[in-house]
Amino acid sequence: MSESSPSPGGPRRLRGVLAPVLTPFHPDLSVDARRLERHCRWLLAHGCAALAPFGTTSEANSLSVDERERLLDAIVEHGVPAERLLPGTGMCSLPDAVRLTRQAVRRGCAGALMLPPFYYKGVSDDGLFRFFAEVVERVGDDRLAIYLYHIPPIAQVGFSLKLVERLLHAYPRTVVGMKDSSGDFGNTTAMLDAFAGEGFHVFVGSERFLLGGMRAGGAGCISATANVNPGGIDRLFREWKSPDAERLQTELNAVRGAVEKVPVIPGLKAIMAHHAADPGWLPVRPPLVELAAAQREALVNDLATLKFAMPDVRG
Amino acid sequence: MSESSPSPGGPRRLRGVLAPVLTPFHPDLSVDARRLERHCRWLLAHGCAALAPFGTTSEANSLSVDERERLLDAIVEHGVPAERLLPGTGMCSLPDAVRLTRQAVRRGCAGALMLPPFYYKGVSDDGLFRFFAEVVERVGDDRLAIYLYHIPPIAQVGFSLKLVERLLHAYPRTVVGMKDSSGDFGNTTAMLDAFAGEGFHVFVGSERFLLGGMRAGGAGCISATANVNPGGIDRLFREWKSPDAERLQTELNAVRGAVEKVPVIPGLKAIMAHHAADPGWLPVRPPLVELAAAQREALVNDLATLKFAMPDVRG
Repeated sequence: MSESSPSPGGPRRLRGVLAPVLTPFHPDLSVDARRLERHCRWLLAHGCAALAPFGTTSEANSLSVDERERLLDAIVEHGVPAERLLPGTGMCSLPDAVRLTRQAVRRGCAGALMLPPFYYKGVSDDGLFRFFAEVVERVGDDRLAIYLYHIPPIAQVGFSLKLVERLLHAYPRTVVGMKDSSGDFGNTTAMLDAFAGEGFHVFVGSERFLLGGMRAGGAGCISATANVNPGGIDRLFREWKSPDAERLQTELNAVRGAVEKVPVIPGLKAIMAHHAADPGWLPVRPPLVELAAAQREALVNDLATLKFAMPDVRG
Repeated sequence: MSESSPSPGGPRRLRGVLAPVLTPFHPDLSVDARRLERHCRWLLAHGCAALAPFGTTSEANSLSVDERERLLDAIVEHGVPAERLLPGTGMCSLPDAVRLTRQAVRRGCAGALMLPPFYYKGVSDDGLFRFFAEVVERVGDDRLAIYLYHIPPIAQVGFSLKLVERLLHAYPRTVVGMKDSSGDFGNTTAMLDAFAGEGFHVFVGSERFLLGGMRAGGAGCISATANVNPGGIDRLFREWKSPDAERLQTELNAVRGAVEKVPVIPGLKAIMAHHAADPGWLPVRPPLVELAAAQREALVNDLATLKFAMPDVRG
């Protein structure tokens, strides 16, 4: 369910479960904006507090900059509320990052979830600080709220505690949170211990860490699996203080475990295709590849064993 | 010196020394096209057989797609011969890769030097094959010549022998060569042993491997350092069979070693700034950072000790 908390002098902040929205493609690999809009509405109706389109799970870096811009326009114009959108706008190039971030602000989005520039490896905190400082200065808009996207297993480049501290102190009203997809819960708690007191919101990058994250003062989770299991994850978000919480966490882990047996992005699209009875969900852009039929079948069977369901997803 | 060799049924191929051309920036970080054009002409006049703009050294991934497109147009329109250009056109996103590759073909460039899509890690050869197959089919032009850019230390994603074999056999007239920046000379010789007989041209990614590469049947080198030492590297390319070759290689290694003591891209810009007496060369885009004054001074002194010179670079 949607929640937000005012923070002193800053914008309203997101809390809860966010899906890094899958991007559907037509068989010719062009973007299927209609199917995307439908999926956005389904997610918001079934447990997502907000949506994070153009994330890793969205194959965002497999989209052109023009496509990303057009697609954000399209979903907002087709009624997905901008204040519930946290689009990915981090790019290797400063001008493209500024362009997409500016659009997110102009469109009234809740914030921008920013990867660091990820081509060069072993870059300094100085260089990364300078990159984000340039984005903030060039966008030049008080409405801008940046959530740092820390995903070193894929981007290789990440945000150290020292870098976050420096950004937070330079831009306290603008640098407002983080998605931690490091897979290292020790990093999540270190970020929370250091910065939650200043109103910095940390989302775990997998629901496996949701209960732990909430107990440590986290803001929720932004997780690939929220594309197919938004209600289940949201239930734990809402009930993390209940006696049932450990059991809910165990159930979430089982679903996640089934999905993680296969490459996650084509796996999630296979789940959508099966539950929506719509093979139009299957295409992925290269360098990803679709699951083989046998993999899809095994995945669907695994989930059936867990009594996994997706309400109202057909049509 | 410029050279090229006809190959059976294919386009003329590049050979010799290529510079991945540094991209100069104004103090506000906008691209300085005039300084770039001047540098291109200097490189072609002083030993480069051809130029590889939009490489790693060019900070290409720090440029927007629009900037890359405009900049290639600008250098060709200002008289840099397209048949001596091998622009980088590989992008994470298929549509952007197709767009830039199409432009390179339309402009009459000698070829396109293509990074693999590098955001997702651990992708399959199937997915990478499919990416390049889509580029070839979508560009759909017999003039297209693709050189694969293998730089796993930075891109993390690279080209296995099996993938090169598959691409070469599917598109023998289009997939014509490789830049090997793996830093692993064993990989270079493995590629040459496997594919040089089919006319596949392998460029070493550092002049440290130039003599070895030429002895093993290589086509030359595409090296960052060629931005400042094109004549020296070209001399070894031309004289690799001479009794002097080992000495020339040792001299090149000494210059390279001095440059590698500092971050290479700002280091090369500092060398340009010093020898051209033009501090306008210094800016880099974040996440890179300029060298500190003391680092620049040490670098210049190291090179002076080696009697390093850059003829005619002022003005």
